[in-house]
Amino acid sequence: MTIPGIERFVEAAEAAADVAGAVIRPFFRAGLAAEQKLDQSPVTIADRTAEQAMRAVLAERLPEHGILGEEFGLDHPEARLRWVLDPIDGTRAFITGRPVFGTLIALLDGDLPVLGVIDQPVTGERWVGVTGEKTRFRGPFGGAAGCRPCPSLDRAELSCTSPDMFGSDIPSWQRLSGAVRRVTLGGDCYAYGLLALGQIDVIAECDLKIWDWAALVPVVEGAGGRLTGWDGAPMRPDGDGRALAVGDAALLAPASALLSAPGRA
Amino acid sequence: MTIPGIERFVEAAEAAADVAGAVIRPFFRAGLAAEQKLDQSPVTIADRTAEQAMRAVLAERLPEHGILGEEFGLDHPEARLRWVLDPIDGTRAFITGRPVFGTLIALLDGDLPVLGVIDQPVTGERWVGVTGEKTRFRGPFGGAAGCRPCPSLDRAELSCTSPDMFGSDIPSWQRLSGAVRRVTLGGDCYAYGLLALGQIDVIAECDLKIWDWAALVPVVEGAGGRLTGWDGAPMRPDGDGRALAVGDAALLAPASALLSAPGRA
Repeated sequence: MTIPGIERFVEAAEAAADVAGAVIRPFFRAGLAAEQKLDQSPVTIADRTAEQAMRAVLAERLPEHGILGEEFGLDHPEARLRWVLDPIDGTRAFITGRPVFGTLIALLDGDLPVLGVIDQPVTGERWVGVTGEKTRFRGPFGGAAGCRPCPSLDRAELSCTSPDMFGSDIPSWQRLSGAVRRVTLGGDCYAYGLLALGQIDVIAECDLKIWDWAALVPVVEGAGGRLTGWDGAPMRPDGDGRALAVGDAALLAPASALLSAPGRA
Repeated sequence: MTIPGIERFVEAAEAAADVAGAVIRPFFRAGLAAEQKLDQSPVTIADRTAEQAMRAVLAERLPEHGILGEEFGLDHPEARLRWVLDPIDGTRAFITGRPVFGTLIALLDGDLPVLGVIDQPVTGERWVGVTGEKTRFRGPFGGAAGCRPCPSLDRAELSCTSPDMFGSDIPSWQRLSGAVRRVTLGGDCYAYGLLALGQIDVIAECDLKIWDWAALVPVVEGAGGRLTGWDGAPMRPDGDGRALAVGDAALLAPASALLSAPGRA
């Protein structure tokens, strides 16, 4: 399962995360006026500049790879190995000064994420996941990579960024959130990082784009968890954007059943 | 408006925050098992131990003052100057490893909060507010104390810890959240700190106990904002626990009207 050259790819991903952080940090809490338009805002400037900086780092080191980012599209669409970038996942957290957004960097082999980085450029926390390897984590606040056991939903800590994202799927959220021990809101990619540290047991979200979820898969799975669609099948670039992460694989079937089955109460 | 001896009280409050942080930090992300009972959990141990440590620091420095904490009740109920303590405001954030909970320390003169500290012991961020003085902030992530102008709700960034706290008052939340530009969830006391940094414009919450809100008043008001009940009147120890914070006083009347008036749509 080892990807040839993966060490070099990890180095490139970490270099890209470093440069994105250097771009983003000066814009954090930098005084976005409440009435400012988002397309001229610090978050937009930081987002676009960080994506360009990451593209430059990756293209110099690995010119044959494809690169997909939200702002600047896809380079080398024919490449089998493609980077997928999201400079600021958690725009609302960033805009409101909360240090729980993240920079996401993934490498896909075909449709399969094989490398993922979640980087929090303000706190200095970084998760690195590689297919077939144990997820690595570093940061100044403690915590160790590794999901925790949680045998049943009634003992589980559930998270999602906001129930608003469920839209017409809100009954799915209500079924799942009614079955768990406790719910905590907020977090974006940072919550998946916390699941990979054994702090959260289940995350259910929807409307995720490929740049929102691709980096999370190797991080979560390398920590012993699972990240799938609501149906329990692997996330796919052409999928429906519904995501279910569990720290203990025993939670996958019951959580999937509650999210997917409209007949269940 | 200056309180006699206030400098000594600020020093005592900061010393109490320091000792609370020393107690709390080792418990953060320290491996709370999902099935562990909360009354035996690290968060409970940290909460109780930190309150005792703060009580010891304050009682040694200011033995004539009253002290009220959630866990250990009220000492010196006859005292006009009373400390109000909440070692871990944001239990859910703490439990899930998010560094956005806070230690709250307030000093009340009768029913009036005259000094408030919001301390984030993991990130090292600290807000200190004193009646009649400009709020001070320090921390490693940037940001400066001072609310921002926001002339109307349709330009406002709204926050609350979770809409679930509204219970039967959820129509109030729906009216207000429907009138603003954007909503971000999560935060507890940390969100009030962000309002005092000009990152958030409005916070509406309910079911707050005195130890949840007393420290926030001097921090928010010393940054130029307002923290009141939903009716726009000052928060009171015997009040209904509904809180409305605005960074720009121009938002107080329209937000209060939407929260309070059941007839409005």
